[in-house]
Amino acid sequence: MAENLKETTVSKNTIHHGSFLDLHRDQVRLPNGKIANREYLLHPGAAAVVPLLDDGRIVMVKQFRYPTGQIILEIPAGKLDAGEEPETCARRELSEEIGYEPGELIYLSSIWTTPGFTNEVIHLFLAKQLRPFRREPDPDEFLATVTMTKEEVLQHLDTAAIVDAKTVVALSYVERRNLW
Amino acid sequence: MAENLKETTVSKNTIHHGSFLDLHRDQVRLPNGKIANREYLLHPGAAAVVPLLDDGRIVMVKQFRYPTGQIILEIPAGKLDAGEEPETCARRELSEEIGYEPGELIYLSSIWTTPGFTNEVIHLFLAKQLRPFRREPDPDEFLATVTMTKEEVLQHLDTAAIVDAKTVVALSYVERRNLW
Repeated sequence: MAENLKETTVSKNTIHHGSFLDLHRDQVRLPNGKIANREYLLHPGAAAVVPLLDDGRIVMVKQFRYPTGQIILEIPAGKLDAGEEPETCARRELSEEIGYEPGELIYLSSIWTTPGFTNEVIHLFLAKQLRPFRREPDPDEFLATVTMTKEEVLQHLDTAAIVDAKTVVALSYVERRNLW
Repeated sequence: MAENLKETTVSKNTIHHGSFLDLHRDQVRLPNGKIANREYLLHPGAAAVVPLLDDGRIVMVKQFRYPTGQIILEIPAGKLDAGEEPETCARRELSEEIGYEPGELIYLSSIWTTPGFTNEVIHLFLAKQLRPFRREPDPDEFLATVTMTKEEVLQHLDTAAIVDAKTVVALSYVERRNLW
C-alpha cells in the first residue's frame, strides 16, 4: 500500500491562546493534493510516574477532573514547565503530589494521549527507593492518595477499574517488564 | 484523608465552537471555596477496536497525525457521530478503515484519554470472526494497514514501540485477559 500519508502545512492560524492550551487551525495539503483544515491543541507535554514503595505497594492519587465530572484514580502526573526535562517534572510531581523523592527513576516510555487533536506526549517513569520529601503542593490542587498492593493493582487492571489511559499504560509496562 | 475533592461550576463560557472540538472556560468553586478557571475541550467520544483475524494476526493502521507531525501506528478508531452507539461506531470504523465486519465484537473497557483537559472517552473493543466488508472510506483520510502476528504485537509492547495510548491499553487488555 502506498506510504504517501503525509500532510503538509499550507498556513497556520492560532484560534485561541489559553492559560496552558493553545488552539490552532492550520490549512494542510492532503496526500491527494486537496486542502483541508486541521484543528488541534498545542500542549507543553507532561510526565507521569508509578511510585513503588519499598514494601511493593504503589501510591496513586484520586483527583476530581473537571472535564469528566468524575473523581479519577491516576498515577502522579503533571505538565512540563517551560524548558523542563521530563525527569525533573516527574520528580517535582512526586514530591508535590505524594511527598516522596526517588532514589531511582526508570524511564518506561512516552505516549501520545490522543494524537488526532493534540500533540500532548506523556513521558512515563517508574520511581523506586522512595524517601519522604514534601515540596509545597499547588494550593489549588486537591488530591487524595491511595496506596495499593501489587495484587490490588493487577485486579484493578484485570477488571478495567482503572480508566485513566496513562495510568493503565504505565502500570501495564511495569507488569509486563516485571519491574516490581 | 479528606475526600472533599469536588469542584462545582460557577459559570460556563464557550471560547470557541470548532468543527468537532468545543473549547470551554468555566469558572469553578474549589473545595477550599476559592474561584478558579478550568479550560477544557468537549469531545463527542470515540470507539477503537482491535481487529483479530482468524489466523491470530492483528490488523492495525498507520496514519499521519498532523498535531504530532508523525506517522503513528494505531488500532482502527474514530469519533462517535451524534447519537451513535460506541459499538456501531466501532463496526463503522472497522469497515471504513480496514474493510472488515466482525462476527463478534467484545467490549473491553472505556478510558479517559487525558482527563485534565478533555472529556474524551474512548470505548475499546475486540473484533473477531472478521469477514471482508468495505464501506466507503472517508476520501480525505489516508491510511496504510499493517498486519502483525501476536508475537510481533507483544514484542512491540515490550519495547514500547507502540506510542499511541489507546492502542497500548487495548492490546494490553487483550493480552492480560488472554482473548487471542
